[in-house]
Amino acid sequence: MQGKDILKQLSPYKQGKQTKDIQIDYQLDYIVKLASNENPYGYSKQVSEALKAENFDFHIYPDGYTSDLRTALTRKLNIDETEIIFGSGSEEIIQLLCRSFIVPGSNVVMATPTFPQYKHYSLIEGAEIKEIPTDEEGYHQLDKMLATIDDHTAIVWLCTPNNPTGAAFSKDAFTSFLDQCPKEVLVVLDEAYYEYLQPDKELNALQLRNTYSNVIVLRTFSKAYGLAGLRIGYGIANASIIETLDKVRGPFNTNAVAQKAASYALEDQKFIQHTNQENYKNLIEFQRFLEKLGWGYYDSEANFLLVKTPTSGVKVYEYLIRFGFIVRPGELLGIPKTIRVTIGKEKDMKKLQKVLEQFDHELG
Amino acid sequence: MQGKDILKQLSPYKQGKQTKDIQIDYQLDYIVKLASNENPYGYSKQVSEALKAENFDFHIYPDGYTSDLRTALTRKLNIDETEIIFGSGSEEIIQLLCRSFIVPGSNVVMATPTFPQYKHYSLIEGAEIKEIPTDEEGYHQLDKMLATIDDHTAIVWLCTPNNPTGAAFSKDAFTSFLDQCPKEVLVVLDEAYYEYLQPDKELNALQLRNTYSNVIVLRTFSKAYGLAGLRIGYGIANASIIETLDKVRGPFNTNAVAQKAASYALEDQKFIQHTNQENYKNLIEFQRFLEKLGWGYYDSEANFLLVKTPTSGVKVYEYLIRFGFIVRPGELLGIPKTIRVTIGKEKDMKKLQKVLEQFDHELG
Repeated sequence: MQGKDILKQLSPYKQGKQTKDIQIDYQLDYIVKLASNENPYGYSKQVSEALKAENFDFHIYPDGYTSDLRTALTRKLNIDETEIIFGSGSEEIIQLLCRSFIVPGSNVVMATPTFPQYKHYSLIEGAEIKEIPTDEEGYHQLDKMLATIDDHTAIVWLCTPNNPTGAAFSKDAFTSFLDQCPKEVLVVLDEAYYEYLQPDKELNALQLRNTYSNVIVLRTFSKAYGLAGLRIGYGIANASIIETLDKVRGPFNTNAVAQKAASYALEDQKFIQHTNQENYKNLIEFQRFLEKLGWGYYDSEANFLLVKTPTSGVKVYEYLIRFGFIVRPGELLGIPKTIRVTIGKEKDMKKLQKVLEQFDHELG
Repeated sequence: MQGKDILKQLSPYKQGKQTKDIQIDYQLDYIVKLASNENPYGYSKQVSEALKAENFDFHIYPDGYTSDLRTALTRKLNIDETEIIFGSGSEEIIQLLCRSFIVPGSNVVMATPTFPQYKHYSLIEGAEIKEIPTDEEGYHQLDKMLATIDDHTAIVWLCTPNNPTGAAFSKDAFTSFLDQCPKEVLVVLDEAYYEYLQPDKELNALQLRNTYSNVIVLRTFSKAYGLAGLRIGYGIANASIIETLDKVRGPFNTNAVAQKAASYALEDQKFIQHTNQENYKNLIEFQRFLEKLGWGYYDSEANFLLVKTPTSGVKVYEYLIRFGFIVRPGELLGIPKTIRVTIGKEKDMKKLQKVLEQFDHELG
């Protein structure tokens, strides 16, 4: 039973080794995981304390409306309760979008490289994929993406800051894009790394949802909020888009612990500020180091940096892992001779610098 | 933005009131929720104790392979690791099946009434729906379902015990069905209520996966295991079906707490035995009561009973809720003049009997 034809061309996601397995295989005491853009500062202590005190009725189905978190988040963001949808990670909302808006004959437009699940889920629903390469600094070429849209375009996928390049486009570029984009085309703005943006790069995308009723903004608790393990994210759009997606989502698509944890996490904005500031400091520091080393990198507004390596990214990956650093080789992301490095804690990044210097030295 | 055409015919899932809201609205101290077939005995104490002691790295993505639970479950069930897939509830696996096997022009065959998500997700993926009414006792008419299969049938959905009727078909009926069903048609056997079956109704369906490579068995931790709030279920099939589904599922589709909780829950089979025994005792007792009252009911092998009511199910529902009992009116399930009652704890069921007697008396 092979399923529908398109599946013959697709592969199951192959997960990297788990940290504990790498520890055993390489006999390491200390592992620094810089491969999945997780928050190196963990998550708010208020979350762990509150959850410890909670007595969960796990045998009861979760609140399918995600009511408490919905109330808290819509108040914070000053939007209506009908303008938000929750997912098991914003990744689930990508699935819901594909299942809601793609019909036979549809095409979708996206950058390349970008977050791979846009393509994967769009293919599964039968869409033709139109990919526009990012420019040399890793930015979406929004004008070329616009020019690619035709009468059969169902969705344009925009990711900013873009994973894996890190580049974030400007507010002017985005509104210019929206002004020219046909209103029948759904524009997905994936802001998974939103909390890492510096203030001058803020798009204020939520304020655009009434002027541009074809935009949905995706955000997540998996990155800066540090709740990746619990799976919760959300999408914000005009109520008519949300109503459509609500028809497709499962009745109980977010779990009880994630709902609670996200509510508590939202209250601790100091943690988010700390995360943002530490990340920015260490990102700049790492960029300065790479410049001294003579290695290039892409622009980044996120908690990771796409580093141009003097040899294959896989080789750098293999060297680093022996010292306990796990990064993502660009060859797996479609950008050879790069590695994507999550920005870690200051002390770990210092150690990483030493190992990279050593690698560069040995390379000669 | 209304999405694809079929969505115009569908409605978002409308959640019933949450228990806390009913408590406020009806000024009740004590609520007995018998509406969602949750486990009235909660979940294993070993789970709550183990989770309290656990220090979760929520900021790390969950193990996308669900490794520890996979190992524990495949050992217990004596199957290979390539023969199982995990989902965010078995409900997510229903979605994955539709996205994997339904193409334009496909049809799917199912009973009516049955679990509504088979129809909902099949429609979303563009299938034509062929529904065969259950017989008078609530059993699938497997022969009629067989006769409905044609060259375009992608999936046959079987649910046993069937939700909402409760009836479970026999092993002989099932193997006879499989012998006659074309091998290209995927047969989904949803055993969400498996743990409630009495031994003589056991299908041993897992043993059939090699003889019948077109069968997938769905089970869940949401019902007898009492982990509905955490969202985790699984499917077992021939490795080629699992590989197909793995291409469609999200890389991190089960959360870290659910994985841990299910592993611990699996170890406490005494809890499952207790749940099964208490449920059976209270089910029989409730059936005897209904017979005395002169009300009918469908056969049940599950933790709920579909009761034939002398007036509309909604009326009975409205009466019961004033006394703190929440049941599901059959009008919402497509079977007027019934209520679906989850079998609760002995003392709650005794109280329910009193209220039903009173209702019947007032009805005259």
